[in-house]
Amino acid sequence: MGQMTTRRPVLRLRSGRAAQRPDTLAVEEPLVVRVAGETLTTTMRTPGHDFDLVAGWLVGEGAVADKADIAGMKECVDEDNTVDVALAEGVAPPRPRAFATTSACGVCGADRVSDVHAALRWPLSGDLTRVDLAAVSALPELMRAEQRVFDRTGGLHAAGLFDASGRLIVTREDVGRHNAVDKVVGAALRSGRLPLAGHVLQVSGRASFELVQKAAAAGVPMLSAVSAPSSLAVDLADECGLTLVGFVRAGGMNVYTHRQRVRTGP
Amino acid sequence: MGQMTTRRPVLRLRSGRAAQRPDTLAVEEPLVVRVAGETLTTTMRTPGHDFDLVAGWLVGEGAVADKADIAGMKECVDEDNTVDVALAEGVAPPRPRAFATTSACGVCGADRVSDVHAALRWPLSGDLTRVDLAAVSALPELMRAEQRVFDRTGGLHAAGLFDASGRLIVTREDVGRHNAVDKVVGAALRSGRLPLAGHVLQVSGRASFELVQKAAAAGVPMLSAVSAPSSLAVDLADECGLTLVGFVRAGGMNVYTHRQRVRTGP
Repeated sequence: MGQMTTRRPVLRLRSGRAAQRPDTLAVEEPLVVRVAGETLTTTMRTPGHDFDLVAGWLVGEGAVADKADIAGMKECVDEDNTVDVALAEGVAPPRPRAFATTSACGVCGADRVSDVHAALRWPLSGDLTRVDLAAVSALPELMRAEQRVFDRTGGLHAAGLFDASGRLIVTREDVGRHNAVDKVVGAALRSGRLPLAGHVLQVSGRASFELVQKAAAAGVPMLSAVSAPSSLAVDLADECGLTLVGFVRAGGMNVYTHRQRVRTGP
Repeated sequence: MGQMTTRRPVLRLRSGRAAQRPDTLAVEEPLVVRVAGETLTTTMRTPGHDFDLVAGWLVGEGAVADKADIAGMKECVDEDNTVDVALAEGVAPPRPRAFATTSACGVCGADRVSDVHAALRWPLSGDLTRVDLAAVSALPELMRAEQRVFDRTGGLHAAGLFDASGRLIVTREDVGRHNAVDKVVGAALRSGRLPLAGHVLQVSGRASFELVQKAAAAGVPMLSAVSAPSSLAVDLADECGLTLVGFVRAGGMNVYTHRQRVRTGP
């Protein structure tokens, strides 16, 4: 497994004083994902948990939904930065993103929302999970306590999977927030947990359309973000039956969609 | 031009009290970029300054370097979310990202750094720009004062172009930090400012490999970030002759590469 941090010299300028010293940085390196020998994507990621990352990415792309869908993964012998995936028989690889876009005029957010909703394997609206307000409020701090690399670099996003009582199951860090989510979803897939009914996914930053899509593809009924959601994140969560919570902290939160899963009363 | 913000109902939970009210969110919508009728990419972006976004993206991809390289851009008649680009004669469109990745094993950060450096149109190492430490320290606050949408939503990244005296030239906001940089670079291209020798690019978040690549492709000799850089951002800046500054605030900063452009003495 590659290193998650590395050191580089830095000139620190503070209050008119200069000091030269080594600084700890989050590592960013390319990762090539190949399925049956064909390169499907290259992502810039922080090394570590590469198989989780690849598995989670395949879930988000709609290609796999069970650990049995992946026959095997291996790292290229000479390098940490290429993962070869063998899908199980009958499982089709995802189409590269560049092809997946329409060539017609007229794409809009509503189209994207409908497309994602139609492609979901697991309906979320029937998920009766309820999570205590106090438990949701505590998630960012619980995750933060596990962010070991962030503490040293200030440069990583995190995602964490929790059960409905607020117990941490797995957390992952990455320079890319979408990668951190892929790593968590991939770890869950590989331990046979999908669909993630009854779980909450916590992210360290904002909630974009892409993160809601990844959560819904994994069957998570609640996404909780430390910062703001975008308009399309809210629209997609609303359509898919996912509870979207933003600005989560000890003092409160904003609930944007499907509020019934946040239990405020006794 | 599309709206940058919109409103959605939200349930605000604070200190045990619940209040229903409308909340202002940053708009996220897909944008399709077509060159000569062929879809090259779809990006999720905040509407507004779409021509800047597309022009800047083309600079980052190495396809254009002068406003004359773009013969014309038009929005699809029915929608705000598709831009058709006509490149000038002899200007080749960029290859879609999915094709641009190698299919061989053995990709690594050093390869990526070398590839980007080799593809640069403008060498940065000869740029003798020097910027006063005090001027660099002031950039985040100057940009922040212009972040009108962020103030209302808490959900947008920003990028700003400054001259070497710290004077703001243009700033742009977007849900994607790479889009904010593309919009600034595109605005500069369209006003005939490329290459951006003697300028500083300020970004609101972290400095990734991709942002350093976009700055270098536009000929900017200094990239200043509010937060941390990644390892590969530092390596690329070092190789390309770009001054990379992080954790910039009133009290100081970290200078990672090519420190000679930050003037600390009288």
